[in-house]
Amino acid sequence: MTTVAQLAVKAIEGGVSAPSGFRSAGVACGIKKTGALDLALIASDGPASGAAVFTTNKAQAAPVLVSKARLHASGGRSQVVVINSGCANACTGPEGLATAESMADAAARACGVEASRVLVASTGVIGVTLDRERIASGIAAAKAALASDGGANAARAIMTTDPFPKEVAVEITTDAGAFRIGGIAKGSGMIEPLMATMLGVVTTDAAVEPHVLQRALAAVTDVTFNAITVDGECSTNDCVFAIANGASGVSLGEKDFAVLVEALRLVCEPLAIGIVRGGEGATKLVTVEVTGAATDVEAKRAARAIANSPLVKTAVHGADPNWGRLVAVAGRAGVDFNLDRARVRIGDVELFAGGRPFDERSAEASSHLQQREVSLRVDLGTAGNGRARMWTCDLSADYVKINAEYRT
Amino acid sequence: MTTVAQLAVKAIEGGVSAPSGFRSAGVACGIKKTGALDLALIASDGPASGAAVFTTNKAQAAPVLVSKARLHASGGRSQVVVINSGCANACTGPEGLATAESMADAAARACGVEASRVLVASTGVIGVTLDRERIASGIAAAKAALASDGGANAARAIMTTDPFPKEVAVEITTDAGAFRIGGIAKGSGMIEPLMATMLGVVTTDAAVEPHVLQRALAAVTDVTFNAITVDGECSTNDCVFAIANGASGVSLGEKDFAVLVEALRLVCEPLAIGIVRGGEGATKLVTVEVTGAATDVEAKRAARAIANSPLVKTAVHGADPNWGRLVAVAGRAGVDFNLDRARVRIGDVELFAGGRPFDERSAEASSHLQQREVSLRVDLGTAGNGRARMWTCDLSADYVKINAEYRT
Repeated sequence: MTTVAQLAVKAIEGGVSAPSGFRSAGVACGIKKTGALDLALIASDGPASGAAVFTTNKAQAAPVLVSKARLHASGGRSQVVVINSGCANACTGPEGLATAESMADAAARACGVEASRVLVASTGVIGVTLDRERIASGIAAAKAALASDGGANAARAIMTTDPFPKEVAVEITTDAGAFRIGGIAKGSGMIEPLMATMLGVVTTDAAVEPHVLQRALAAVTDVTFNAITVDGECSTNDCVFAIANGASGVSLGEKDFAVLVEALRLVCEPLAIGIVRGGEGATKLVTVEVTGAATDVEAKRAARAIANSPLVKTAVHGADPNWGRLVAVAGRAGVDFNLDRARVRIGDVELFAGGRPFDERSAEASSHLQQREVSLRVDLGTAGNGRARMWTCDLSADYVKINAEYRT
Repeated sequence: MTTVAQLAVKAIEGGVSAPSGFRSAGVACGIKKTGALDLALIASDGPASGAAVFTTNKAQAAPVLVSKARLHASGGRSQVVVINSGCANACTGPEGLATAESMADAAARACGVEASRVLVASTGVIGVTLDRERIASGIAAAKAALASDGGANAARAIMTTDPFPKEVAVEITTDAGAFRIGGIAKGSGMIEPLMATMLGVVTTDAAVEPHVLQRALAAVTDVTFNAITVDGECSTNDCVFAIANGASGVSLGEKDFAVLVEALRLVCEPLAIGIVRGGEGATKLVTVEVTGAATDVEAKRAARAIANSPLVKTAVHGADPNWGRLVAVAGRAGVDFNLDRARVRIGDVELFAGGRPFDERSAEASSHLQQREVSLRVDLGTAGNGRARMWTCDLSADYVKINAEYRT
C-alpha cells in the first residue's frame, strides 16, 4: 500500500454519502418547534464495520447507552445511524431509555437490518421527553428520502444552535485503488439550555475490520474532536461514529493503519475546527501549541488549560498580547514547567524567554491577534519533547449573552 | 480551654492591627501611577510566630521565593509583613529576585528585626520591573506611619482592581481570657493585564507555636481562600500569611487546635467571601454545596468543577434554573457519580431526583436565582458521605469586557 506521504487527496462533494454504497437523508419531523430539519438517517446499502467513541461524562444519555450496547452486540457490524436534534433524550429515566431503543428499532426495521446494527444519537434540550411518534414518522420519511446526495440535509438535520452545517469529504488514491471518506459534525459549545453535544459521523467505502476501525477512530478523535474546546464542557450525549462498508474495493488492514488514520484525520480535523469556528460567540479561531513538555500527555494537559482559560480567551478577544496570562496558566496546569527556560510566542513574535519579557514586541503581537486566526505557542522549558495542539475560540460578551439570556 | 461551641465571639474594628501589639500602615510610594496607596507594612512590636500558604503555580514570583526562604530560615519566627501593589514583580528574572530581597531587607532594617523575620508579597502587573527606590522610600514612610489604627490603610494599600477593601477582626473570649484575630485580603480574579493575585494577612495576639500555626493556617485556607473561585485561575503571587505574637497572654497549644482553627476561620471565611463578592463583573454570590460524594476530596473536585463552569455561571447570571447544566458538570468532573440517585437543588427547590426532572418547579427556582445570594446543591448519589462547599460568583458580560478591553 502507498505510504501516507504518497497519498493523492482530492476534496469532493457529498459529505457523509460521498463514499460508494452510502445514502443519507435529513427530514423535519416536528421535534424542533421551528419546523427545521431534525432527523438524519445514514445507511450503508450493504453490511459494514462500525466503530464509536462516546462521551466520558458519567451522566450518559439514553441513546449513548443504547448505541454502546448495540455496537457490542453486533460485534462492530453497524450499518445504519439515526440521529435526532432538538431533544437530547438525556436525564429522562427508564422511559427515555425505552424511547432510544424504539428509535433504533424503527430505523432497523425501515432499513431492513438487524436491530443491533443501528447506532442512535440525540442532541438538544436535556431532561425533556422525546416524542416517539414523531421520531417514528421521521424515520419513515427519512427512509423514503435516502439518497446519495442526501449528505447536506443530514448535516443540517443534526444541527442545534450551530451557525452553519459542517460536512467534509475526500477521495484518496492509493496504489491499491481509490476510496472515499466523508463526515458530518455538529456542536457549538454546551448550549441553550443544554443544547449540548458534539456529534460526528464518518463514512468510508474502504473495507476495514471493526477492531482496526475502532482503534483508528479512537486515535484520530484524540487529536481532532478531543483537541477542541469551546468552553471546557463535556456533554451527556457526545458521540463520534464511523462506518466502513468496503464498497470501493480498497481494503485497509493492520498494515495500512497509518493510511486509515490519515484518511480519518483528513475528515475529522476540518470538522472539529468547524465546530470551534462556529463556537458560541466566537470571533477567532485559536490554535494552541505546547512544546517542551515532559510527555505528550502533559503537553495536552497544558494546552487544554490554556485553551480553556477565560483570561487567555478574553485577552485574545481583545487582541491584548498578554504573554503573562499564558505563563501563569502553564504554571498552574499541574505539569512540569521551568520558568527560566520557558518561551511564549504569539504568532511568530516571541514575547517571553530566558525568564524575561520582550514587551517592545507587543505591538507586532497585537497585530497578529487582530486577525481571524491566531496562534499561541508555549514551550514549557522542560528537558522533554512532549507536544500537543488544541483548537479553541475567543471568549466574547456574546458567549455570556447566549448562555445567560436564554429564558429571559 | 473552652470548646469551640462555647466561644464568645465579638466583631471589632481595626482589621490587621486590632490584635494587641500589632501596628500597621498603608502609604503611597508611586508604584501605582494613580497616586493611590500602594505599600502596606504590618508589624508585631515583639517577637512572633509566622506561617504562610503559597501559590501552587510553578511560575512563582520573586517575593514568593523570598518569603518561602525567609520563613524557613527563621524557623517560623516572622514578625513583619511588607506588601506592595501595582507591580507583581513576577517573571522579572534575577533582577526581580534581588529587588524582592532588598524590599524585605529594607523592611527588616526599618522595623529593627532580623532579616529572616520579614515576609514580602507583591501584586499587580506581571513582567514589569519593581522600582527599588520607590519601595525603599515607601517603607520608610510606612514605618513612620505605623499605628494601631492603620489597618484600614493597609487593607487599601494591597488592593489592585478590587472594588472595595476587605478587612475583618474579632475578639474571642475563652475561659483562659480573650484574644483577638484580624485580617485583610485582596483579589478580584486574575486581572487587567494580569493584576493577578489573592493575598491575605491574618494577625492574632494569641500565642501559637509556629508549627501549630502553620498546620491550622493550611487547614483553614483549604476551606476558605482555597474554596473560592472567580475564574479558575491561580496566580504567580498568591500568598496567605499569619502572624501570632502572644500579646494577649492567651496561649493556644496543640490541645486548643480546634479553637485556633475556628478563630482563623472566623476571619478567613468572610475575607474569602469578600473576594468573591468583589469578583470581576460579579453580581451574585454563589454557594455551591456537594454531598453524597465518595470522599471529601471528590466532593471538592465536583464543587470546583461546578463553581468554574462557564455554563453554570452564565445560567446563574441569567437566573435560568438549568439543573441539567449541574448534572452535566457533575458527570464530567472525574468523580464517582450515580445519575439515578443524584439530586439537584437550586435554593430549596429540588429540580432533579430519581433520574427525573421536576420542571414544574422552575419558576420557584428562578425566583431564588434572581437574588444577590444563591445556593446550588448537588448530591452525587454515591454510597459515600463526602461533602464540600465552594463560593463563586456569576459570569457576566462585564467579566469579558474587563478582561478583553484593557488595552483598547
